[in-house]
Amino acid sequence: MRTNHFAMADAGWPGCAKSLKGVILDLCGVLYDSGEGDGVAIPGSIEAVKKLKESDLQLRFCTNETQATREKFVAKLRKLGFDISVSEVFPPAPAAIAVLKERGLRPHLLVHDGLLPEFDSVDKTNPNCVIVGDAAENFSYQNLNEAFRVLIGLEKPVLFSLGQGRYYKEMDGLKLDVGVYMKALEYACDLKAEVVGKPSPTFFQSVLNDMGLKPHEVLMIGDDLLNDVGGAQHCGMKGVQVRTGKYRPIDERHPTVTADGTVDNLAQAVDMILGQRGH
Amino acid sequence: MRTNHFAMADAGWPGCAKSLKGVILDLCGVLYDSGEGDGVAIPGSIEAVKKLKESDLQLRFCTNETQATREKFVAKLRKLGFDISVSEVFPPAPAAIAVLKERGLRPHLLVHDGLLPEFDSVDKTNPNCVIVGDAAENFSYQNLNEAFRVLIGLEKPVLFSLGQGRYYKEMDGLKLDVGVYMKALEYACDLKAEVVGKPSPTFFQSVLNDMGLKPHEVLMIGDDLLNDVGGAQHCGMKGVQVRTGKYRPIDERHPTVTADGTVDNLAQAVDMILGQRGH
Repeated sequence: MRTNHFAMADAGWPGCAKSLKGVILDLCGVLYDSGEGDGVAIPGSIEAVKKLKESDLQLRFCTNETQATREKFVAKLRKLGFDISVSEVFPPAPAAIAVLKERGLRPHLLVHDGLLPEFDSVDKTNPNCVIVGDAAENFSYQNLNEAFRVLIGLEKPVLFSLGQGRYYKEMDGLKLDVGVYMKALEYACDLKAEVVGKPSPTFFQSVLNDMGLKPHEVLMIGDDLLNDVGGAQHCGMKGVQVRTGKYRPIDERHPTVTADGTVDNLAQAVDMILGQRGH
Repeated sequence: MRTNHFAMADAGWPGCAKSLKGVILDLCGVLYDSGEGDGVAIPGSIEAVKKLKESDLQLRFCTNETQATREKFVAKLRKLGFDISVSEVFPPAPAAIAVLKERGLRPHLLVHDGLLPEFDSVDKTNPNCVIVGDAAENFSYQNLNEAFRVLIGLEKPVLFSLGQGRYYKEMDGLKLDVGVYMKALEYACDLKAEVVGKPSPTFFQSVLNDMGLKPHEVLMIGDDLLNDVGGAQHCGMKGVQVRTGKYRPIDERHPTVTADGTVDNLAQAVDMILGQRGH
């Protein structure tokens, strides 16, 4: 009985923290809430990131953020008070650009104005694929029609979606995310999009590769049950959900995805992890 | 051999025309092409409608048009030269209003400005469902967010979609139709919309009821392979596709829906039908 008890404690949350070598954090809804201007840091999260950095755990940030270039985005986070650098942050756009180059594709972009500079060096003439990101206000009827017409005019239409989130939370309420418009274009053109970003296993694996760690050595903390927690678990990582950001109580009764742990916020998660490790 | 040959001719197109008692026509893409202003009649279609009206066949018009009230829409068609009256035209909005009353539902509307007067007498306070129509330019990010927030805030979200078309053709090109935004909201809220309009069997049946005819006595002519032809066939009617409107050559090689006949335009279809009937 005793052995079993210890085995379970070690395998589960927060017992698993003892054997961890790295942590991946989602950004929006975990570190900060977005909204007008730069958003606001979630209480305790600046200190929590600092504690993780001072620990012996490797730390990366994995985000489906596509409203700004990596540089601008990281500058915003630093301004909010977070100790974070560009090389630690993994968003979908650079991953998508790598795929474009690999396959000789020229995109038509339906993305946020803030993301456009990321694609400056990419050939966009005579497009043979469409990339949809979280374009927010750019998701006008006219712009969606334009992307649709490019796709329907291609002999072999290829659609990349930078993430597949349903919605996220800004300070003035829930907002529709890129996945909703991905589904719209999928239906319009009778095709299946290729998702670049969470929960794509290829995307998570690129972060693990950068850390030089195996999935079971890493814990993902996010506010999105399906894309953060479910996606990480699908790759063999542990997944913990925070009750901030887009979290909804109904997540804790989801029929197919169960988080390894659910915590009030990042600060609590980090205290539990470091507590288990004897810090 | 000879018997077989005749039997096949009678069952198929245009042989089936001999036993018909009624014809249902789609409007946009069959009678006229929409676009700026009132659109333009498709050559031969005004005369074709006239010929059908002078025949012994019953005639109804079944449309997923939701950009205007029935009265305004019919007035537009009459101005284009068509002999058509309000009582012959079956669009989704009146059918949806009947459902609302039956189930005590109060809608939040995401529809075209032109359709709003149709809902004048409907209680829209404190909405407990969402109706999405072909809102065209009203499909802004803000408006889609608003409909999403109503749905996600309901304990039992109910979404009605006035049709489920993917796109239609206007004079300046293909335009995204209501089905695309229905799919977007379905994904955002993890629900299934109830479709009012073609290809809903309930909707086709209401037209058959009005004609007092059985499905095998009626032929549907449309430009939309899935919603007109497939929908009608699913109800037991024959379905003929015209090569006007949103028709694309690829429709003739569709994996699951095969039209009973494909004709260049309505004029040709009507001449073939009336020719078989010895007119």
